[in-house]
Amino acid sequence: MILKNALVLKDYSAKPERLDIKISNGKIKEIGVNIFDDIEIVDLTDKLVIPGLINTHTHVAMSIFRGIAEDLPFNDWLFKTIEPLEKKLNDEIVYWATLISLMEMASHGITAFCDMYMFENSVAKAVADFGIKAVLTRGLVDINGEDNGRLFENLKLYEKWNNFDSRIFVGLGPHAPYSCSTKYLKEIAKISKDNNLLVTMHLFENSWEKEKFNLKEILDTGIADNHLLAVHCVYVDDKDIELLKSHNVYISHNPSSNLKLGNGIAPITKMLKNNLNISFGTDGAASNNSLDVLFEARLSTLLQKKNNPENMKVDEVIKMLTLNGYKALKLEGGEIKEGAYADLTIFDLDNPSFMPIENIKNHIIHSSPKIYATMVNGKFIYFDGKFPTIDKKEVYKKFLISYKKVIGIEN
Amino acid sequence: MILKNALVLKDYSAKPERLDIKISNGKIKEIGVNIFDDIEIVDLTDKLVIPGLINTHTHVAMSIFRGIAEDLPFNDWLFKTIEPLEKKLNDEIVYWATLISLMEMASHGITAFCDMYMFENSVAKAVADFGIKAVLTRGLVDINGEDNGRLFENLKLYEKWNNFDSRIFVGLGPHAPYSCSTKYLKEIAKISKDNNLLVTMHLFENSWEKEKFNLKEILDTGIADNHLLAVHCVYVDDKDIELLKSHNVYISHNPSSNLKLGNGIAPITKMLKNNLNISFGTDGAASNNSLDVLFEARLSTLLQKKNNPENMKVDEVIKMLTLNGYKALKLEGGEIKEGAYADLTIFDLDNPSFMPIENIKNHIIHSSPKIYATMVNGKFIYFDGKFPTIDKKEVYKKFLISYKKVIGIEN
Repeated sequence: MILKNALVLKDYSAKPERLDIKISNGKIKEIGVNIFDDIEIVDLTDKLVIPGLINTHTHVAMSIFRGIAEDLPFNDWLFKTIEPLEKKLNDEIVYWATLISLMEMASHGITAFCDMYMFENSVAKAVADFGIKAVLTRGLVDINGEDNGRLFENLKLYEKWNNFDSRIFVGLGPHAPYSCSTKYLKEIAKISKDNNLLVTMHLFENSWEKEKFNLKEILDTGIADNHLLAVHCVYVDDKDIELLKSHNVYISHNPSSNLKLGNGIAPITKMLKNNLNISFGTDGAASNNSLDVLFEARLSTLLQKKNNPENMKVDEVIKMLTLNGYKALKLEGGEIKEGAYADLTIFDLDNPSFMPIENIKNHIIHSSPKIYATMVNGKFIYFDGKFPTIDKKEVYKKFLISYKKVIGIEN
Repeated sequence: MILKNALVLKDYSAKPERLDIKISNGKIKEIGVNIFDDIEIVDLTDKLVIPGLINTHTHVAMSIFRGIAEDLPFNDWLFKTIEPLEKKLNDEIVYWATLISLMEMASHGITAFCDMYMFENSVAKAVADFGIKAVLTRGLVDINGEDNGRLFENLKLYEKWNNFDSRIFVGLGPHAPYSCSTKYLKEIAKISKDNNLLVTMHLFENSWEKEKFNLKEILDTGIADNHLLAVHCVYVDDKDIELLKSHNVYISHNPSSNLKLGNGIAPITKMLKNNLNISFGTDGAASNNSLDVLFEARLSTLLQKKNNPENMKVDEVIKMLTLNGYKALKLEGGEIKEGAYADLTIFDLDNPSFMPIENIKNHIIHSSPKIYATMVNGKFIYFDGKFPTIDKKEVYKKFLISYKKVIGIEN
């Protein structure tokens, strides 16, 4: 396939150039001017192509709860509303809810995401069918001294799905310091090191977590010794930031969810100054409520500019959306170059919000982008309003049936 | 025309109902089930219709500067970058820049807006051609003891355009307390009272304004005696809020611009508790950078929930976007009812971000809406990606030529 005559932003620091991109076997084979071939040609004259956008924190199946629990403080939201409803979930519901979220993410230009939840085998099936890229983890909790087979489930997931189609990778998902014992974290840390597995964990999302737990003690379990993607980090002080940096911890920043649940604003400017790898996550659709990392990027940028408009310049933010995201997920990617996987986010430039077109990089972050297409490993998962890999009507129908089961409406 | 089988939200407090809407002579003639007629039928089975969204503060022609001046503090942004470039503007440039902004607003579901800028005669011409509704004001400044004919221009605008096509209305636009003398504000106040004209003015956008000026003294000029739409109000204390309420001042809240220029967050929750009429404004595209009031609403809601997730419930926010906006602009509207102008914002429900469809009102504010069509006085100004009233390619072309003139690139 040749993507013809597109405006191409090769990486976050580049300037857009008019180029052709030749794709073969899921990878970029050639980039240049006037590439010809007798294969499929996709005309992108009025489009902008950039490296894929990454969503580094989701609970994808939570789209089933979107809009159910509004206007509630964190504790009421999680423990009184969401957790009781989660008991209704099953493999089938999670499959359809995941597909709705994958459609949503693809339509927002997302090529890969990192998930932590339950029934991850169904999430993996949906990812396999849809064509997106993902790092999947089973949420691990042993709060009552028992993990109820969760870690075993996570390892089975790894055996079954890791490396599937060069698109699915499995990590470990300890839920949070307040829901995992020290002993459990040590066990997870050992498995991570022995098998070179990514670990992702919620960290210091709430002020009470920061009061109750000590970061050094958490890190002393070894949980960050291989590759830790820590999510939220709203309540971290200067000493914590140093510790995170010295342990090469990757940070997933979820600003919508943090504001919506009343948790606050993470000290992103300070973390960036300390050269931490920060990427964006949407969190689940029950606390956001959309799976759009471009929204998160714009929101985060505005929040940091409140104190100083010189904070968070556009190149840095595009880096966080692309290259940092790939690194956080231990994936190759984030640049458009020969030999790289063809993970591409394609914007429609027929968009008054993108005028004057000369300042296009600024518009990606500060204006209203229109996504035209999303490609993962050389295949379109979203193209001009359509989802080529699935039957959209069937997904809508099955999702609605699933929703009614969850909230207890007879069909 | 009949809008057939749509999901209709009659006003902010209503529940969506499946209804037909008959439109005749720019107004809603009938609302009901199974309305038939032999005229034009628009099938809206998979769509949601709500009262039009209002943008209560713009400098529409500033789209020409979009993305030019990023990452700058307010004073450098306004006085060093934007103001020198504004000297390059002329009637033709403002006409094309306005049309780009009108396209953008229509594609975001906006039916009416309030503008304050220069070359407003060209803005009026663009509004007349495009079909949107607007309240237009000439920005009034006499900072050097001379208004250079601005007020005279504002009054000529009124004579020429007020009430054009039941769509264009003219008010008065004193720029700010720091750029208008007391004497000048008194003169503007008198004209406003004598002719029943809306006044709109920037107020306490920056901390230094609040330190330098006293709200009581400003209001003592009579500037709020008829109808004042005050813009920003970031730095207002409890006493100011009481004063604003006792003078029935309308507030245009512009959260993106306030954050992006480093000015802060307006105390919206407190103002709402004091029953002030608050609506959303985008400000100009040089400080936002998009003209999307749904983005402003979502951002504002998240900012207020930071302190308490129970703040700014969805019905209140939809009211701010619709009914409050119409009232702020002294326009009839904000409800879908027989006899009302047919100003409608229509959402596409074929959107994974809007699932589960049962919680649709929450999705308008908290998820990612897709606008399908925008109607003003019974005519579509945006419909399924198209702009029926203008030649889009011509506008893009002329806008680009205008941009090059402004920044001094030879064509």
